[in-house]
Amino acid sequence: MTRYIGSGEMADLLRREGPERFLRCLVAVLRADFLRWPDFDLAPRLASHSAGGVIELMPISDARTYAFKFVNGHPGNTRLGKQTVAAFGALADVATGYPLLISEMTVLTALRTAATSALAASVLARPGSRSMALIGTGAQAEFQALAFKTVLGVSEIRLFDVDPAAVDKARANLDGFNLRFVCAGSVAEAVAGADIITTATADKARATILTPDLIEPGQHLNAIGGDCPGKTELHADILRRARTVVEYEPQTRIEGEIQQMPADYPVVELWRVLRGEAPGRVATDEITLFDSVGFALEDFSALHCLREIAGPGSDLDLIPASDDPKDLFGAVLPKRRASQRAA
Amino acid sequence: MTRYIGSGEMADLLRREGPERFLRCLVAVLRADFLRWPDFDLAPRLASHSAGGVIELMPISDARTYAFKFVNGHPGNTRLGKQTVAAFGALADVATGYPLLISEMTVLTALRTAATSALAASVLARPGSRSMALIGTGAQAEFQALAFKTVLGVSEIRLFDVDPAAVDKARANLDGFNLRFVCAGSVAEAVAGADIITTATADKARATILTPDLIEPGQHLNAIGGDCPGKTELHADILRRARTVVEYEPQTRIEGEIQQMPADYPVVELWRVLRGEAPGRVATDEITLFDSVGFALEDFSALHCLREIAGPGSDLDLIPASDDPKDLFGAVLPKRRASQRAA
Repeated sequence: MTRYIGSGEMADLLRREGPERFLRCLVAVLRADFLRWPDFDLAPRLASHSAGGVIELMPISDARTYAFKFVNGHPGNTRLGKQTVAAFGALADVATGYPLLISEMTVLTALRTAATSALAASVLARPGSRSMALIGTGAQAEFQALAFKTVLGVSEIRLFDVDPAAVDKARANLDGFNLRFVCAGSVAEAVAGADIITTATADKARATILTPDLIEPGQHLNAIGGDCPGKTELHADILRRARTVVEYEPQTRIEGEIQQMPADYPVVELWRVLRGEAPGRVATDEITLFDSVGFALEDFSALHCLREIAGPGSDLDLIPASDDPKDLFGAVLPKRRASQRAA
Repeated sequence: MTRYIGSGEMADLLRREGPERFLRCLVAVLRADFLRWPDFDLAPRLASHSAGGVIELMPISDARTYAFKFVNGHPGNTRLGKQTVAAFGALADVATGYPLLISEMTVLTALRTAATSALAASVLARPGSRSMALIGTGAQAEFQALAFKTVLGVSEIRLFDVDPAAVDKARANLDGFNLRFVCAGSVAEAVAGADIITTATADKARATILTPDLIEPGQHLNAIGGDCPGKTELHADILRRARTVVEYEPQTRIEGEIQQMPADYPVVELWRVLRGEAPGRVATDEITLFDSVGFALEDFSALHCLREIAGPGSDLDLIPASDDPKDLFGAVLPKRRASQRAA
């Protein structure tokens, strides 16, 4: 049987464990997996584009476990009351090819994206960072705020969104998590003096959410909204000033903020920084950038973490059980007698 | 919610409808989809190889629906009482990216493989074909026999397998389906005089199940066991004598019997024959070959047919429902009060 975790069980799990504990587990598993990056069989994501959006399959495996995620991106979905990004995924046993777990990954993707952002910031943001501007307070926002609180000790969140209702929503959801809030009237007001700036806007366009004049020396930029061809958030001059860290260079060159830059624009992969093979932040006043697009390894880690945290729960009968594997027919159809047919 | 069809419901469905009716629906949907081949966005399958086998993702879509299959191939699984090939898959709405159906596909793959074989034989086998040799009576065998009975009116099945227990198994499962059987002592005995020869052996090797001296003028060969690099069933001299039809040429060049042949070995894609753009059988005494490897379009058709046949059944909560799609956090976590936290 294949373990199933739907959005109902995910909600129960988050309520029971608390999002902070879940995020802490995620960061620990992510760090351990990034540190063994060469163990993984990396593949490009397989994208199917249509007028309304994109559907992608994101596979990855190590010697023991195979993971994949099905994920869409449909900017028009919000008008239909649906998620812009919805996802589900699976873990399978490499030795037998049998599926071990099928899970919702809409919430899990938000959690792992936030955990990866915080993990990157742990080696890129200034030590002692306590305030974060959050530009774009959509579906990802609260997860980002809690990850940075849990992992880095961020205590002040400076919120801005072009939609005031989205700010109110994030503010209300984060109430009771022991954070201070500044609801800013502009991007400039939100980012002024912040240690960290997270951009998580949703427009599928070449946007310029941040311009160079807004950025202060020493700030860390966590750019998660620019994540597919044609969708960016930062002015190219910011990239020219920043030390840029990415997840997986071949993918980020196509999908990240750096799609705006020439092919020789220097980047470092996060796993190298975590392993100490490349420097993280080297000066207090430098501008660092995590140009995040989301990578299959993060889903692999998140599914493993989820499997650890979740209880026995419910199962799916995805694969027929049979005493004799050659007898697939007999596993689903009872034997007839010739007389039955003749009758 | 996403409709779920597990192996239990698949078994119920097959018992209720009968495999013949299911196969007839499948052939009709397959034919209709092959006829509109240019409507589909074809992608190569994405394979992850390991010491014990392979795990693949097979995506395909038209303008309305996206389908993918997760499928493994692990020859050692039978020793563990597991299927060599197990699969599950999904249909999703192209307009929103939301999953519509998650289904078992181990049985469904066997059904669609058999239905595709019979569809190809309907334009390649001699009119009036009544006897079929079935070499290799493993998990696929009964499905092949019933598809050829249902679609072509085959009434005599000539069974051979190196494992006599596998022959007994197929013979017993097919009892009551109004077929005549010859349990042959050798491949030569099974194929002598047969109108159609189906090879469905499982060894992952360059095998030579059929040699040219065994083949008679006018026979149609339905070769389904040679379906991945390094796995073939036919002597190359048979290919040199045959008119060969394939599903999707770029894939079959790598995976099919024709991997043994030079790149300019002539083949025709099945959809062209079905559309009348290329000839099927042109002479009573020619040898025709359907070099089947299994293609994503067949899974697309099979999932659609299944969705048609199945009743309302059960659902999975794969994607969180939310009144406000921007409020993903609020969809899974209740609002806290600051006082709760302080208490």
